[in-house]
Amino acid sequence: MTTTDRLLLGPGPGNPYPEAVAGLARPLLGHMDPEFIAVLDETMARLRTVYRTANPLTLPISGTGSAGMEACFVNLLEPGDTAIVGANGVFGDRMCEVARRCGAEVVRIEGEWGRALDPQRLLDAQRAHPHARLVAVVHAETSTGVRNEVAPLRALQDTDTLFVLDAVTSLAGIPVEIDAWGVDAAYSATQKCLGVPPGLSPVTFSPRAVARVQSRATPAQSWYLDLALIASYVAGSARVYHHTAPVSMVFALHAALGAILEEGLEAVWARHAAVGAHLHDALPEMGFPLLAQEGHRLPELTTAWLPDGLDDAALRRALLSDYGIEIGGGLGQFAGKAWRFGFMGHSARERSVVTLLGALRDLR
Amino acid sequence: MTTTDRLLLGPGPGNPYPEAVAGLARPLLGHMDPEFIAVLDETMARLRTVYRTANPLTLPISGTGSAGMEACFVNLLEPGDTAIVGANGVFGDRMCEVARRCGAEVVRIEGEWGRALDPQRLLDAQRAHPHARLVAVVHAETSTGVRNEVAPLRALQDTDTLFVLDAVTSLAGIPVEIDAWGVDAAYSATQKCLGVPPGLSPVTFSPRAVARVQSRATPAQSWYLDLALIASYVAGSARVYHHTAPVSMVFALHAALGAILEEGLEAVWARHAAVGAHLHDALPEMGFPLLAQEGHRLPELTTAWLPDGLDDAALRRALLSDYGIEIGGGLGQFAGKAWRFGFMGHSARERSVVTLLGALRDLR
Repeated sequence: MTTTDRLLLGPGPGNPYPEAVAGLARPLLGHMDPEFIAVLDETMARLRTVYRTANPLTLPISGTGSAGMEACFVNLLEPGDTAIVGANGVFGDRMCEVARRCGAEVVRIEGEWGRALDPQRLLDAQRAHPHARLVAVVHAETSTGVRNEVAPLRALQDTDTLFVLDAVTSLAGIPVEIDAWGVDAAYSATQKCLGVPPGLSPVTFSPRAVARVQSRATPAQSWYLDLALIASYVAGSARVYHHTAPVSMVFALHAALGAILEEGLEAVWARHAAVGAHLHDALPEMGFPLLAQEGHRLPELTTAWLPDGLDDAALRRALLSDYGIEIGGGLGQFAGKAWRFGFMGHSARERSVVTLLGALRDLR
Repeated sequence: MTTTDRLLLGPGPGNPYPEAVAGLARPLLGHMDPEFIAVLDETMARLRTVYRTANPLTLPISGTGSAGMEACFVNLLEPGDTAIVGANGVFGDRMCEVARRCGAEVVRIEGEWGRALDPQRLLDAQRAHPHARLVAVVHAETSTGVRNEVAPLRALQDTDTLFVLDAVTSLAGIPVEIDAWGVDAAYSATQKCLGVPPGLSPVTFSPRAVARVQSRATPAQSWYLDLALIASYVAGSARVYHHTAPVSMVFALHAALGAILEEGLEAVWARHAAVGAHLHDALPEMGFPLLAQEGHRLPELTTAWLPDGLDDAALRRALLSDYGIEIGGGLGQFAGKAWRFGFMGHSARERSVVTLLGALRDLR
């Protein structure tokens, strides 16, 4: 079965860094092999650097980004807890649903799609629900292209409420400052700006989040995602077997993080910013008005309205079949009305922008 | 960071088929790309062939084997349900724990480690608990090297109780007959006899298991593992996005299944059987008495007692460092007393046996 070598400019996966692909193909090791444990340790150290945190419990969860989301909620919530969740896109809605399935009372702070959520509304909700277990918000909404302002949520450190951040589409694309912002738990995904194929979800838990996990009255409802158990494999001195780590994917993540840190994290952010700015300039000129609120536009994930009369499905099909370029359609309430362009990880290159713009010019 | 090219003869992962490694390195596709959907469809068809089932809902779960276990329990159990679980090893115990975290009343049918569980005891337990939601048992216990007799559990088809099978270490190593045995739900893992790196868990659900999922009073407690949602991506005509599939791992599984079916499933079973028989003959002669009950020894996963005076850790370390050969120590109550040898997937070759035996002879 033949498949095509695509230029991946949708909402993820992006094209993996060549180093990540080489990592995948590395000779396999057992998950208890001292050589693998050393690679895992270095991977976790690199994740701390990228997350800008000193949190010891910083590790890749053995599943995709949604597994990381679930890992945060099943470990931090117990039935009856209150969870305050910002919802201005598909992934905020998903957090509400996951929290509900943990038996939590969800206080949903709804925001208009395409606009940023005012962090003061989340802080006000916490003041109204001072015993809330956590406030959760999406940093970079993949469904809308919006960057939510999250640094002010640092104020939650003065309360007993934990701050949970979805960093799926932001980590290694735009600044993420776990310690400076007082984030207690965050999750990401490998296939976005980290430039690795999908399959792992890097998470980080602050000491007070870890204390919360350790003081639970009931075990986490998920055995697979139970961080108390996982921690004794990834971080305990005894390395107690929990489940078999996805070794090849960890090799790939390790290698991509190496490439990112060699380029320099700030340089990687600047590369994403430059590519995004180029695209944001060009799209309106070509008749695609930008969708996301000005000042809150993600450089790595751009949303744009479709011009009147443009045939969404046909044009995306032509991009894919004639040029091997994948872009993303609208998700949720934007389906059929907008497109999503992702320039993430290895895809975040000037070359990718001129390729996309050239193909679009030819097709229209 | 350099790592070694190991001969993986422990309890898993085994060495991947070369085709699987080539699959990993294939150019990445998006999870909604028609070309990827075609590969996923063919992967599911191949899994049906290997599982010997016509079940439409046969798919890779985006996690390791323990995620597949959890997927079976969270989808089939609701709080208050009774689950009858056979427990004669670590993985039977794990099933009890996962079922408990789903809120189930667990009826634990304990068996001696190293001996097979009498399936009549499970059927008797079902007769004593006729409203039990499911009976679950491990086919090939990775911790003991025992093959449990599971075909007689077909009798559960005459009851309202579902039959759940752990096929982690049996699938593509010894005969697994989902439809002939009346199995309602089974899960496996890629890093054992399927000869793929760890990271996916193939599961299969019978029509009556699917009906059970559809008639739940409450949603599954896991959103990530909710088969009602996953099915609309993998099998629905609309291919509704749920989570981003681990594309590279699916490529690897697709390729390994292709290699297995090209060799022929019966030929692959015969290869595992021949390699296991060779090892079972040789180990006692070398002073390693076989641990598992005669007549129930797995060819792909052999357990043997350590000779008196043998230094467990030192000898395994020497095998690893001097010969690059990984074998497994004892797990649970066999820690320090037994070894586990896995000859699974691409590792199941005569060449692997002579290599191991030669190294052991040299080291002792």
